[in-house]
Amino acid sequence: MTDQIRQFVLNEIPSGTLTPEHFQLERAPMPEPGDGEVLVKPLYYSLDAANRAWMQGATYRSALEGGMVMAGGSIAEVLSSNDPDFTAGDLVSGDIGWREAAALPAKNLIKQPRMEPLSHLLSVYGVTGLTAYFGLLEVGQPKEGETVVVSAAAGAVGNTVGQIAKIKGCRVVGIAGSDDKCQWLTDELGFDAAVNYKDGPVYKSLKAACPDGIDVYFDNVGGDIFEAVLFQMNMHGRISCCGAVSAYDGTPPPHGPRGVPGMFVVNRLTVRGFIVMDFYEKRDEALAEMQGWVESGQLKVYEDIIDGFENLPNALVDLLAGGNRGKRMVRAG
Amino acid sequence: MTDQIRQFVLNEIPSGTLTPEHFQLERAPMPEPGDGEVLVKPLYYSLDAANRAWMQGATYRSALEGGMVMAGGSIAEVLSSNDPDFTAGDLVSGDIGWREAAALPAKNLIKQPRMEPLSHLLSVYGVTGLTAYFGLLEVGQPKEGETVVVSAAAGAVGNTVGQIAKIKGCRVVGIAGSDDKCQWLTDELGFDAAVNYKDGPVYKSLKAACPDGIDVYFDNVGGDIFEAVLFQMNMHGRISCCGAVSAYDGTPPPHGPRGVPGMFVVNRLTVRGFIVMDFYEKRDEALAEMQGWVESGQLKVYEDIIDGFENLPNALVDLLAGGNRGKRMVRAG
Repeated sequence: MTDQIRQFVLNEIPSGTLTPEHFQLERAPMPEPGDGEVLVKPLYYSLDAANRAWMQGATYRSALEGGMVMAGGSIAEVLSSNDPDFTAGDLVSGDIGWREAAALPAKNLIKQPRMEPLSHLLSVYGVTGLTAYFGLLEVGQPKEGETVVVSAAAGAVGNTVGQIAKIKGCRVVGIAGSDDKCQWLTDELGFDAAVNYKDGPVYKSLKAACPDGIDVYFDNVGGDIFEAVLFQMNMHGRISCCGAVSAYDGTPPPHGPRGVPGMFVVNRLTVRGFIVMDFYEKRDEALAEMQGWVESGQLKVYEDIIDGFENLPNALVDLLAGGNRGKRMVRAG
Repeated sequence: MTDQIRQFVLNEIPSGTLTPEHFQLERAPMPEPGDGEVLVKPLYYSLDAANRAWMQGATYRSALEGGMVMAGGSIAEVLSSNDPDFTAGDLVSGDIGWREAAALPAKNLIKQPRMEPLSHLLSVYGVTGLTAYFGLLEVGQPKEGETVVVSAAAGAVGNTVGQIAKIKGCRVVGIAGSDDKCQWLTDELGFDAAVNYKDGPVYKSLKAACPDGIDVYFDNVGGDIFEAVLFQMNMHGRISCCGAVSAYDGTPPPHGPRGVPGMFVVNRLTVRGFIVMDFYEKRDEALAEMQGWVESGQLKVYEDIIDGFENLPNALVDLLAGGNRGKRMVRAG
């Protein structure tokens, strides 16, 4: 490392679609850790739709504001530490932001095991994998033989949700934004069917793909797709609300899905929003089960890795446009 | 009884607001019970927003159609029976319809105990009371000290929900459609506050009435009120969806509430539709607890009884316009 680092600052909160021009590449002095602080250097930066949601105001974290270093999770190495729990060479995760190094309070960091490949700590064994696991199994509660639908199905969380649902013996239908992605879902990942929402009315294609209705919907997108699914839910169905990416980038939708709350009552649905932290106490159990699936080859890990710190803005903008397959991250260096 | 009975036929499904002219008073011969059937004579007819919902297509029961005798629940007396489980003089409840007598399969009827007043079998000890009980306690899961909001609060279900929430130690805020109703809720029923949704923006009045946010929302109405509440829900809040009366009478709303599903995720809400039958196995327990509250005076029973079979259409139309306080019914005779 030199005595300077690079970092990306968010110039201003976008009022419409996010573009690379909303970010400014800056140089800053190498940070020095204070008392109880740890100096860390990110190795892999996680790119997520949530990065964009944080610009929309306070969510489960405080809102981003113009002039701040861009926020984002990463896997990082400890360079030096003024806290007894960490030593140089430790591997950690945390919201370190888009910078080549940071000095952070020890309590903001979680120690991680060394593993090969390290990137799995951001994909299947990170927030992404755990979000899929808990959102499907704890919130969605799928039973063998039920029909599970997942939107943004070629994304990091979505493809994992679909694969876990298959492991649990469900019929799985993915919704994605291109024929290529749909083919990938059915041919490579073993989804039973996939619907391209850009190719004709999604209600109709979904109806054809789900002849027995829908028991569990894992929702990553909200909006019109939420509405199309809602009207096909079976009695006592469950909707696991993970995000509403359709509302993140661009102007917020002028209205919500029709059928709310009427269809909730008619079909006695349980609709529940969650974030992964809600299930943190069950984390070890979940990781152990997922590790078993990965090792046996039942759960395939798809990563979409872009090299170079300077590519962070483009990597996020492209992810919001649906450019990724599997877990997108940027490798430092 | 004579050898003729009166009955109301639904002429056609209303495309807009329901009016008395949608019903036709007819005379029909006194029905004769066939094998396994029971001849019953309603004493009290229940009027509910659900009567209107059944005209909107299949819900949890098959849709009503033009030309049918109007459907509706009642408390009835058995006149004669061809089923060994029922004898003349028994008291029963069931969906007997708007007619002075009916011959129905025994399986459609539920035997009821004699009590004074009989009308309580339709209000606090009937579907109304049980809907309030299960929808609040099982679905809403209120904890002592939490803020509970209920819409259509002066209605049959709503006023009971509010009273039960008070018994459970919650802060209770009702939403109703007139200053008179609001005053009734706070002065007579012990609600902590009440908001007249016709008097200015409901979001703002609700904000003033709920300084600590809302933990449980018992929703009877859907629509704009659902949206106003949604944006004030606390973390891990619960919404119990009982009905969407705003969508029943008139043309269906062109869109749903904003913030769905985004606010579900941000605040990790659990939103659940239910109908009373979902909890039928816990009925005896619930009735015993409610009886205790009624006898101790903690739970007051409000009934809005109109005399005369011929008044059924007006009683329903007026209920949909918010004309009732407490449980509306029509007494035969």
